[in-house]
Amino acid sequence: MNVTPQSMHFAAALPLQSGASIRAYELSFETYGTLNADKSNAVLVCHALNASHHVAGTYAGQDKSEGWWHNMIGPGKALDTEQFFVIGVNNLGSCFGSTGPMHTHPDTGRVYGADFPVVTVEDWVNAQARLLDGLGIKTLAAVMGGSLGGMQALSWALQYPERVRHAVVIASAPNLTAENIAFNEVARRAIQTDPDFHGGNFYAQGTVPKRGLRIARMIGHITYLSDDVMNEKFGRQLIASSQSEQDRNFFYSTLEAEFQIESYLRYQGDKFAEYFDANTYLLITRALDYFDPARRFNGNLSLALARATSKFLLVSFTTDWRFAPKRSREIVKALLDNKRDVSYAEINAPHGHDAFLLDDARYMGVIRSYFNNVVNPSGEAA
Amino acid sequence: MNVTPQSMHFAAALPLQSGASIRAYELSFETYGTLNADKSNAVLVCHALNASHHVAGTYAGQDKSEGWWHNMIGPGKALDTEQFFVIGVNNLGSCFGSTGPMHTHPDTGRVYGADFPVVTVEDWVNAQARLLDGLGIKTLAAVMGGSLGGMQALSWALQYPERVRHAVVIASAPNLTAENIAFNEVARRAIQTDPDFHGGNFYAQGTVPKRGLRIARMIGHITYLSDDVMNEKFGRQLIASSQSEQDRNFFYSTLEAEFQIESYLRYQGDKFAEYFDANTYLLITRALDYFDPARRFNGNLSLALARATSKFLLVSFTTDWRFAPKRSREIVKALLDNKRDVSYAEINAPHGHDAFLLDDARYMGVIRSYFNNVVNPSGEAA
Repeated sequence: MNVTPQSMHFAAALPLQSGASIRAYELSFETYGTLNADKSNAVLVCHALNASHHVAGTYAGQDKSEGWWHNMIGPGKALDTEQFFVIGVNNLGSCFGSTGPMHTHPDTGRVYGADFPVVTVEDWVNAQARLLDGLGIKTLAAVMGGSLGGMQALSWALQYPERVRHAVVIASAPNLTAENIAFNEVARRAIQTDPDFHGGNFYAQGTVPKRGLRIARMIGHITYLSDDVMNEKFGRQLIASSQSEQDRNFFYSTLEAEFQIESYLRYQGDKFAEYFDANTYLLITRALDYFDPARRFNGNLSLALARATSKFLLVSFTTDWRFAPKRSREIVKALLDNKRDVSYAEINAPHGHDAFLLDDARYMGVIRSYFNNVVNPSGEAA
Repeated sequence: MNVTPQSMHFAAALPLQSGASIRAYELSFETYGTLNADKSNAVLVCHALNASHHVAGTYAGQDKSEGWWHNMIGPGKALDTEQFFVIGVNNLGSCFGSTGPMHTHPDTGRVYGADFPVVTVEDWVNAQARLLDGLGIKTLAAVMGGSLGGMQALSWALQYPERVRHAVVIASAPNLTAENIAFNEVARRAIQTDPDFHGGNFYAQGTVPKRGLRIARMIGHITYLSDDVMNEKFGRQLIASSQSEQDRNFFYSTLEAEFQIESYLRYQGDKFAEYFDANTYLLITRALDYFDPARRFNGNLSLALARATSKFLLVSFTTDWRFAPKRSREIVKALLDNKRDVSYAEINAPHGHDAFLLDDARYMGVIRSYFNNVVNPSGEAA
């Protein structure tokens, strides 16, 4: 399935939760499949920290250009693009096409840098709603996302209940825990205290705060994986040597990578620092921190979710300690308190938070079944 | 209990596991209580990452100068200095008095800096054994430590089985997991990529890699605490404001601390960077990574522990995810495989790894009972 990214321009200013606004912005997006005559088969897919509108398919002539949820979405796949019109959208503040900190502020003619306004999950959802308006889609068959994407799916059901028939919220949470915020904060401090960050205006200096980005990514990677899968994949294995593992001496160095887990993390950090934008990292982790629909309800999630009228599928993964199953169960419970129609699957998977991006027969089976039911709510045919 | 730090000079070179050696070094230490006539009541206490020889008591005229295990060790306490002669020793490579990277290399006349040799748990134990020689102590009633200190206690039982009657290994592990190594590696990279690190020779530059040290300490703090205790202590509470929590607006800033957990971590990082040495941090985390007595036995811990002949007390804490109870149980099992005399207590405590430093009636009761038994092995009197 070859795909082509598109872009939509929005001339009207978007008011943000902070009180600021952003104007003359673009959103990058892709679509897969065909919108049906009554425009009832659209599924919006929201992305998490390190992803984009390129959700499925490949770019013609580009090797390894599969979308980030390629295993889930496509013709005949769990979310079947022969039945659904699937939309991937890149969020405001990202570095993958939509208007972000590296673009020019239309009022000043200067690159935004540190002046790009803080955006929230609610702001993203409002921006996505305008994209749907532009596409002529009034109601979504479903909105779906994992992790931070799941927060957007949940927020859609709260901000635009009349426009969402189903919300699919995967490996997500009703808010971040103190520990989640703590990891985000360390990553942000690593970026912000990198001398090449220049208070966020590094573009003008011709620098990139790569040291900080590397550290941020290394921390992220640790939290995406489970302790178990790290032990299985890397354990205490030393980096390759001509001598056998047991016989080889340690390098006895604090600087050289000694264990495979170290070189893996360094590699991931280096790769990330080459393409990801530092200001985007700050904005997206802050959106994660801020999301908390129960806050206005004194922490009562059941009251907060009363507005949601869609049907829900929640999925969590047993070894995910970043967005643990109990966090998904909080959402399930709050929905049940409101007598909503909610399905919940807790998938026994070893891969930690990363599991939501990986192939797993039970996981894909749950998604496939749910979307079959979206098409045939009466259950007449599979 | 007022105490005074002491120092012992060692003229003979100490051969290190790496093949290097270190010569003309000093070890800082303190003692509490009185060595009995047959020198049979000595207890050596080994320290973990961020600690020193100052284990108990206070320094005359200095407020808040309590030793780091002050709650555990002193007259009438769980480890009773009216019965035992307790020795605290600072390890080689530390920044609290014993010879370390900020001292002068006797051969070159220059500050060691990056040239300070990598030291291991085994090296530390060898250095500690020489201190005991100097004090005229042949056999320890017990060796005791928590976390990295527990690794030293375990290693004592393997390196000098004839000199140890009891080993008390608290909140420790037979080696680090991949995840543990990963966190250490991120902290090291933060320090090593700080431009003020200058390849470890920052003393000559008049700089301190404070940015890196702050990040290292923030990461450390997250792993010392349990998710539960973080939620209880900080949760999603915002930093103080004149407005009530629920009503106050977010700052909508990626730079300003918004949540209390953020300002807590920043404070801890700032404080640490003022006094801790960056090279010491690298050396100590590396010693943690390298410790693995089963390595020479193809990973078979039961074979590795066959050398140990002392009696053992192992203690772990339920919410400790850095050195989880299952890691202590691995040691217990390997000792039982060798038909060793081993006691094990798994303390139900909410505080994560930090619990080993905190007051807890059950924990202190276990230690007290065990040391009563060290004094009266027949159980005749308490």
